[in-house]
Amino acid sequence: MEDEKPREAQTPDSVVIRKLYDESLQNGKAYDYLRVLCKEIGGRLSGSPQAEKAVKWASAAMKDFGADTVMLQEVMVPVWERGKEEKAEILPSKVRSIIPLKVHALGGSISTGDSYVLAPVIEVSSLSELDQLNSGQCMGKIVFINQPMDPKKIMTFDAYGTAVAIRWAGAKKAAPLGAVAVIVRSVNPSLDDFPHTGVLNYPDSVKKIPACAVSTNDAEKLSQWLKRDPGLKVKLSMHCKQLPDVLSYNVIGEIKGSDKKGEYLLLGAHLDSWDTGEGAHDDGAGVVQIMEALNLLKKAGIKPRHSIRAVAYMNEENGGRGGKKYAEAALEKNEKHIAAIESDAGGFTPRGFLMEGDSLKKEMIRKWIPLFEPYFIHSFDLNGGGADIGHLKNQNTFLMGLLPDTQRYFDVHHTSNDVFEQVNRRELQLGAATMAAMIYLIDKYGLEP
Amino acid sequence: MEDEKPREAQTPDSVVIRKLYDESLQNGKAYDYLRVLCKEIGGRLSGSPQAEKAVKWASAAMKDFGADTVMLQEVMVPVWERGKEEKAEILPSKVRSIIPLKVHALGGSISTGDSYVLAPVIEVSSLSELDQLNSGQCMGKIVFINQPMDPKKIMTFDAYGTAVAIRWAGAKKAAPLGAVAVIVRSVNPSLDDFPHTGVLNYPDSVKKIPACAVSTNDAEKLSQWLKRDPGLKVKLSMHCKQLPDVLSYNVIGEIKGSDKKGEYLLLGAHLDSWDTGEGAHDDGAGVVQIMEALNLLKKAGIKPRHSIRAVAYMNEENGGRGGKKYAEAALEKNEKHIAAIESDAGGFTPRGFLMEGDSLKKEMIRKWIPLFEPYFIHSFDLNGGGADIGHLKNQNTFLMGLLPDTQRYFDVHHTSNDVFEQVNRRELQLGAATMAAMIYLIDKYGLEP
Repeated sequence: MEDEKPREAQTPDSVVIRKLYDESLQNGKAYDYLRVLCKEIGGRLSGSPQAEKAVKWASAAMKDFGADTVMLQEVMVPVWERGKEEKAEILPSKVRSIIPLKVHALGGSISTGDSYVLAPVIEVSSLSELDQLNSGQCMGKIVFINQPMDPKKIMTFDAYGTAVAIRWAGAKKAAPLGAVAVIVRSVNPSLDDFPHTGVLNYPDSVKKIPACAVSTNDAEKLSQWLKRDPGLKVKLSMHCKQLPDVLSYNVIGEIKGSDKKGEYLLLGAHLDSWDTGEGAHDDGAGVVQIMEALNLLKKAGIKPRHSIRAVAYMNEENGGRGGKKYAEAALEKNEKHIAAIESDAGGFTPRGFLMEGDSLKKEMIRKWIPLFEPYFIHSFDLNGGGADIGHLKNQNTFLMGLLPDTQRYFDVHHTSNDVFEQVNRRELQLGAATMAAMIYLIDKYGLEP
Repeated sequence: MEDEKPREAQTPDSVVIRKLYDESLQNGKAYDYLRVLCKEIGGRLSGSPQAEKAVKWASAAMKDFGADTVMLQEVMVPVWERGKEEKAEILPSKVRSIIPLKVHALGGSISTGDSYVLAPVIEVSSLSELDQLNSGQCMGKIVFINQPMDPKKIMTFDAYGTAVAIRWAGAKKAAPLGAVAVIVRSVNPSLDDFPHTGVLNYPDSVKKIPACAVSTNDAEKLSQWLKRDPGLKVKLSMHCKQLPDVLSYNVIGEIKGSDKKGEYLLLGAHLDSWDTGEGAHDDGAGVVQIMEALNLLKKAGIKPRHSIRAVAYMNEENGGRGGKKYAEAALEKNEKHIAAIESDAGGFTPRGFLMEGDSLKKEMIRKWIPLFEPYFIHSFDLNGGGADIGHLKNQNTFLMGLLPDTQRYFDVHHTSNDVFEQVNRRELQLGAATMAAMIYLIDKYGLEP
């Protein structure tokens, strides 16, 4: 071992990083593993049989990708089931016809009971417009929040950040006004037929009412119908239910470090997904990328100084319990996490990293930009980390998020169209190599300025 | 008019550019026009009825997008027809079965005559391997050139540049060795079932033999078959033919400049496409982007000093006659073209510009990088322009190419899968705005250091 150091020292970083990318593009396995996760397991909401299968799959995969040790970390997760398919229809007041609307219940929503909700509809174009309504205007009605994403934001995540409030807060704001249900426009920059689900928030203090998302095309349709027939009704039936929490697991793959084995560099992604699609971009892509990163480091002969962990978190989508649990355990065990990098923004062409933490550390990382530019990785300016690793924030962990190209992500996000076929092999493998390269540099140089 | 100058001078470039992007993302029409070109006209090889329709469509569209003047520039183009669908089959030597192969004739290829070619196959893994063969090894055989694209190149165009030689030169190199036909592996980084066509070269001095591309999956299949059954034969029938040249047109839309109307800034893309798909990314995307760029400048109230031309070139794919003709006419009429920007690399997320010309001008353009960074446009280092505008090179025209993300392009390039559905609206519109922004800056500041 001793005599390896001088040789290693002679390999320029650019050459090591080139190896990581070459291996990923030539022989990478992330794409093939993603196919299995998507096609043989599919959508895997926390607590479902599919999520259980995914835990087993990830445990085996971590080994295949080169983890020395694989650990299962217990975490209690909520269980929400969609039940049989939701149904929504416009019933015009004057014409005898039925116009179907494509909807999906929002995650966590209550059902419409044994029958259905049938009520007139009041449309608002934003949450603030809803805030200005009074009970007289909403009582007994379905509130339809038809707020589009802002197309002008270049980063679609910025537009998502604003628009997603209607999904999160629509029900809790409409309920006190006497609304009987909420329909929100899908958070989608495109006009298409896929409803986008996602989690809502029911505070204890507020009555729970059913809430669903309607596809953007059908949001436009409903809005047009309301203009010419304000007396129409919508009939909505949803069969979802919340069950008691069950035991599930974060899956942790580890490569033990050489001289700093008690200090951790973490790669994170989430194993659970919404039930509607295959969880391909969200976040199967991230899961196979973090495992591939371990593999690439091994293949390049890198023996890390710090311990490297790939953590496939459970329950990011509707609870965030896995992220919370991991951070609590790390604190308890006094595990020092130097840095954590999350991949949860789709398996598209990598563009850079989000960063959150000490500004001197940011500056240090920006000195490495020339090493990334040959791979068209340029963006190191935006703030952020990730939902799961975010729980490590108070443990002095430097947080980073892999930033892929964001233009296509919200077309498929949380829909039945988030399937394997939407992922491009090269884009996925480039992302894995980009994470491996960043871990390699942080491991070698540390982040102490 | 007079009093507008001071006001214009007060609007910072960043604000003008923001307007261009906002308009493109909010109200841009490029995507809707592309749908019509793809779905109502479709594939449009030079000299075909579809190409003729595309000329009419583009003439009308240029007006809709704000050109003051629309001109048709006559150009004689070659006419090659695929005829009825090609067919290729493996006939094993020992088993009585037929294994179909997915192939497309290469553009310009001769047919297999009234019947078919039936011959044993010799496989080589590169052109240089072919160069080392002698007539004894190839005589009477089909040469199968099974050279994959290099997956390690980050810019897929670099890998294309190398791999495409098998398509261009396979037939002319195999014919003198006595080969009866050539099958080349599709120039595609993915494994799938789409053959990729494209033009070949038949020098006068060499005997013409039929040549086709086989899908990457079927290239693998044929190679595996040959390993266990070197005596197998392949039966190939192709029905293509070359017809006499016909008259067609470049479509030129112009906005007349104010104080430098005799000097031109050109936006270029090509109107023709291969017949197999819809020519969506190649290069319907470019055509609607250059027209949209005119529209965006108008909508932003920009009155250009130079005359701006959007040129939809004819016959890029199998002759390049349109590009040549335009440049010849420009020389004849003594039209001074300051700069030309081509979009012919797919309608994906824009990443930067290729540049070709005076290095001081390149430096000048690089000073504007901060104006593009908010739009995630970072790459200004690579050399290049474009095939059509390339003919202006000797007229002291500074050449640029819009550089989109290249990872997905060669999956669809020249296939039946190059269809409208592969194009993302936001990515397309971002590219149009990026070209408009660059034209705005060049028009305002010129390129004289």
